Amino acid sequence: MTEERYRHEIAHLARVELHTPNPDGTLWFFKDLLGMYETKREGQSVYLRGYEDPYQWSLKVTEGPEARMDHAALRTSSPEALERRIASLREGNLDGAWSDGEFGYGKTYEFDTPDGHKMALLWEVEKYQAPPQLQSKILSRASKKPLQGLPVKRIDHLNLLAREVTPVKESFERHLGMKTHERVVDGDIETGAWMSSSLLSHDVAVMRDARGARGRLHHVAFYYGVQQHTIDAAEMFRDYGIPIEAGPDRHGITQSSFLYVFEPGGNRIELFGDPGFLVLEPDFETRTWTMDQIDTGTAIGGTNLPAETYFTYGTPPIEPIPDIVRR
Amino acid sequence: MTEERYRHEIAHLARVELHTPNPDGTLWFFKDLLGMYETKREGQSVYLRGYEDPYQWSLKVTEGPEARMDHAALRTSSPEALERRIASLREGNLDGAWSDGEFGYGKTYEFDTPDGHKMALLWEVEKYQAPPQLQSKILSRASKKPLQGLPVKRIDHLNLLAREVTPVKESFERHLGMKTHERVVDGDIETGAWMSSSLLSHDVAVMRDARGARGRLHHVAFYYGVQQHTIDAAEMFRDYGIPIEAGPDRHGITQSSFLYVFEPGGNRIELFGDPGFLVLEPDFETRTWTMDQIDTGTAIGGTNLPAETYFTYGTPPIEPIPDIVRR
Amino acid sequence: MTEERYRHEIAHLARVELHTPNPDGTLWFFKDLLGMYETKREGQSVYLRGYEDPYQWSLKVTEGPEARMDHAALRTSSPEALERRIASLREGNLDGAWSDGEFGYGKTYEFDTPDGHKMALLWEVEKYQAPPQLQSKILSRASKKPLQGLPVKRIDHLNLLAREVTPVKESFERHLGMKTHERVVDGDIETGAWMSSSLLSHDVAVMRDARGARGRLHHVAFYYGVQQHTIDAAEMFRDYGIPIEAGPDRHGITQSSFLYVFEPGGNRIELFGDPGFLVLEPDFETRTWTMDQIDTGTAIGGTNLPAETYFTYGTPPIEPIPDIVRR
Amino acid sequence: MTEERYRHEIAHLARVELHTPNPDGTLWFFKDLLGMYETKREGQSVYLRGYEDPYQWSLKVTEGPEARMDHAALRTSSPEALERRIASLREGNLDGAWSDGEFGYGKTYEFDTPDGHKMALLWEVEKYQAPPQLQSKILSRASKKPLQGLPVKRIDHLNLLAREVTPVKESFERHLGMKTHERVVDGDIETGAWMSSSLLSHDVAVMRDARGARGRLHHVAFYYGVQQHTIDAAEMFRDYGIPIEAGPDRHGITQSSFLYVFEPGGNRIELFGDPGFLVLEPDFETRTWTMDQIDTGTAIGGTNLPAETYFTYGTPPIEPIPDIVRR
Repeated sequence: MTEERYRHEIAHLARVELHTPNPDGTLWFFKDLLGMYETKREGQSVYLRGYEDPYQWSLKVTEGPEARMDHAALRTSSPEALERRIASLREGNLDGAWSDGEFGYGKTYEFDTPDGHKMALLWEVEKYQAPPQLQSKILSRASKKPLQGLPVKRIDHLNLLAREVTPVKESFERHLGMKTHERVVDGDIETGAWMSSSLLSHDVAVMRDARGARGRLHHVAFYYGVQQHTIDAAEMFRDYGIPIEAGPDRHGITQSSFLYVFEPGGNRIELFGDPGFLVLEPDFETRTWTMDQIDTGTAIGGTNLPAETYFTYGTPPIEPIPDIVRR
Repeated sequence: MTEERYRHEIAHLARVELHTPNPDGTLWFFKDLLGMYETKREGQSVYLRGYEDPYQWSLKVTEGPEARMDHAALRTSSPEALERRIASLREGNLDGAWSDGEFGYGKTYEFDTPDGHKMALLWEVEKYQAPPQLQSKILSRASKKPLQGLPVKRIDHLNLLAREVTPVKESFERHLGMKTHERVVDGDIETGAWMSSSLLSHDVAVMRDARGARGRLHHVAFYYGVQQHTIDAAEMFRDYGIPIEAGPDRHGITQSSFLYVFEPGGNRIELFGDPGFLVLEPDFETRTWTMDQIDTGTAIGGTNLPAETYFTYGTPPIEPIPDIVRR
Repeated sequence: MTEERYRHEIAHLARVELHTPNPDGTLWFFKDLLGMYETKREGQSVYLRGYEDPYQWSLKVTEGPEARMDHAALRTSSPEALERRIASLREGNLDGAWSDGEFGYGKTYEFDTPDGHKMALLWEVEKYQAPPQLQSKILSRASKKPLQGLPVKRIDHLNLLAREVTPVKESFERHLGMKTHERVVDGDIETGAWMSSSLLSHDVAVMRDARGARGRLHHVAFYYGVQQHTIDAAEMFRDYGIPIEAGPDRHGITQSSFLYVFEPGGNRIELFGDPGFLVLEPDFETRTWTMDQIDTGTAIGGTNLPAETYFTYGTPPIEPIPDIVRR
Repeated sequence: MTEERYRHEIAHLARVELHTPNPDGTLWFFKDLLGMYETKREGQSVYLRGYEDPYQWSLKVTEGPEARMDHAALRTSSPEALERRIASLREGNLDGAWSDGEFGYGKTYEFDTPDGHKMALLWEVEKYQAPPQLQSKILSRASKKPLQGLPVKRIDHLNLLAREVTPVKESFERHLGMKTHERVVDGDIETGAWMSSSLLSHDVAVMRDARGARGRLHHVAFYYGVQQHTIDAAEMFRDYGIPIEAGPDRHGITQSSFLYVFEPGGNRIELFGDPGFLVLEPDFETRTWTMDQIDTGTAIGGTNLPAETYFTYGTPPIEPIPDIVRR
């Protein structure tokens, strides 16, 4: 157990870098359809932010040979929390290294999860300052909602595939001070865990990789804040040729509204409506879903998450790639 | 073609009678979950109306050995339209008979579709008059929205299964003056048609019965008017043990929002959110969907209508009955 | 009373022409914010259509010295209906004249309402044919929903101010075959009437002009089909500097969801969410709202329609123009 | 400034006790309209909870001579946090006293705000355990959503009126470790502050009492989680005779969706749709709204908060009581 006073060490998911073999398609997806602002372009990378993302970028799109997550970075709740988390990671032999020089962020501590995902922790950020024409009259809004596509507000969470869920979950609990709010077990095997150190249902989730691979990404989620916008987004994706994997519907696990699509580079992206269940109880007991309850867990409505993709496809992809993703 | 001046002969679907082998379950479904008012109980039948249904009842639930539609009745747009429609039916050898004495309605002309569904036409109705405590401050509302369950406003439309779609469609066009707004073809075979004689996308639809049966019901639809209520309904059905077949999502055909469930007697019921596309053009050309377009036609979002039930299950049921219906 | 067989003579509102002293602002409003497509530009006029408008244009924006409606045109339900309506107008001494040559429409019969509004009737239209890149996969949709702003689907209805409501209402009933679904009376004076000849609550409404002027426009309404989009639109208008007069809320009269704003030229525009109450009963009795019921009639939620503008401001404007309109 | 490690000391608002001179009306409001479950009845008090409230009750309704808040209790994030907060309160001369014996809660520390509101802190709670028939299939849900009225999920936040905002705000910051996310200033005077120690925009707000009174309640808010439900609630309140003060609309301050009504006892109740802006940045800078920005701050849509009630009416009421409250 994390010591009582170290329960809120991770503030939120700050940024993710995705690789894409189809950068034009991927950028069209995030900029033209999801209305993200471009804040910088350098080399093979473009930096993007949603209109309520508070920093210079929440998504970096980099050209690469295959779709995958390069890394994801969590912001700690204080500089001291960052120091404590690094000390804990080191005690756990999850050693890492400092990096620096990324646009819009200060020094960043990089480490690998037990399954091999590249993660990072950081405190230092450069707050985004909107130029006058992009300033919103809504003072908590970092910039005006753009008039392009169906704009997402901000990045929301990360969902990782892992060969084994439990070691990743335990390292996030022990070293990052996260709490597992919900989990799924299939007999003796833990097949999913949803974690945060705030009252969000999750900043990070881990699910069992049915292909048995290591270190893959299931999805990155972006936030609308309004469930209707996931319905609007489905209509947009349908007409503009983006394959819809599942949704819009609402998960029983986390009670959040979802829509899953594949961006043109091949990464799975979730559009997240409202935040679902907010974990206000400080001593909320982890809910454990068993296989006989899993229908409600996966969807409250009639959605069947498609077995041929949802539980097996991740990035980097493993052959054969399902047709729907290539569409 | 119907003559120009006889284009609006059918005003709307007025009422449906369903049989159920589980009357307690079926009444709990319509009264406790869908908030319908009971207006009369007689013999093995209970008469129900939604809070915006204008007449004494829109749904009659009758105990019977198997789930099925007993009959459905359309109201004409005038007494003269009723006479004209009957004359046309007789010319087409779709002869029928007058009946009378049903609670809340006057004389009614009963006939069979070419596939054997029992249909009726009527003009005479008894308008529902709410007692003072049920009168709504909203003057177009026939009664207050009740505080029970998630109340439907009114009946909306009927969807019939037929061994062959075309003859049924053609008789509705020729004799009832309906217009087919959208249809589906699979090669040479017409597999679905959506018809009305108003600007609604459909009062009646006909779909091909994949089991090759005659005269069965696919579903009766009730209207919420708000898409969110189909989402709310899905959550209610999930927690109260009503099997959800598909949705909530939006059809491409008709652009309407849908949720399909099986009431405890076994009849499929659709909860209909907003009305979708309103056919304002008086010379709207029938849209024909082909199999390569059918994914968008069936759902704009990610729903896959389940082949094991959606295209094969109707009432009266044919063995084997899918497990989901029995649940 | 209109004869029974002539009840559906007017199909819908096809087009409106607005004058604006600020054409750049007005076009930015309709194109950049409301996502209307431009289909032609000629002289001082620009022709626009929503993505589900079926013809070449539903809105013509013309530069002029003051904000006003130039004219509005209703499409009849058949060519014969057009002839009948003209004959009736002539019998009623509401004579008019044929015009021709307007882009996208054929010959058009122009006449004045008893209060002096310029109206027109027409049958001949040129259907809009989307080029391949604008074709929607949703076959009932005339073109793809654009990725610009918060796109309206189509034009919806017209609301006219009149020195006296009753003569205008009666001429629409008698000569156009419209039916008044709801009306408001203040003692002996009829102050509002909502009419259509379809099951829409209204294609045209008339309200008493509290300034006593003749022939003015209260508002033109554009249709979203989804109530949430009126909420989204309010947020957009707020941040992009468009003055909001009232809403989003829902009227008791018509049960429709509304948002009223002033476009930069000064005309009041309504954004219309869902269609509200659909008048399915063919013998629906006109509902009459009295002053003691008017709070519910004007808004079901907490909106107070602002007396300083809503009941007095119309276009062309009469001095003094309220500050909110000029903002 | 609160020390870094003591930033999350208050978990959430656990419960409020309201007095009402009209207990039958007040209970009808909360039970029949808002679908709250009754968990106990004792003496002049009834204990209620929303279906997602995790403890035995979140609202206690007590008969009393006038509408007012008896007290409100915040739950700390740990037993140690409770000790630390009490120590801090004592250092600040905001001494209080332990009480015990309240149904469903353990020992509770009661104290007064500098303005005289009775507040309490507690850690010990009895978790609500649903009997089998009320258990939800959604595991994070403490009980099934009932079929009565339009059920609220849970209590959300508290809004206090104070003669002077600043001393109350500062005591909450200093002694409870809360952070002020947004505030309003009118020249030199602070007129409102929204605070929490989580990522919610606020657990408690304080607004200036325009009547200059001390220790009054502005409103208690209950949470729907879905903005549409505030619209549905407005319709319900309208037809069932509950006076609507303002909304549904969205505040610029906090970006939350709101609806304000007066329960039959006279207390103002807010129905809260989605949570609005979630304060993910751990170093979020307080936003300060000035009077020239206040229109957007109070409502993003067209709502004008009514000056004759919103800024002057609180409970206990001061004569003259506005007519709308008595309605």
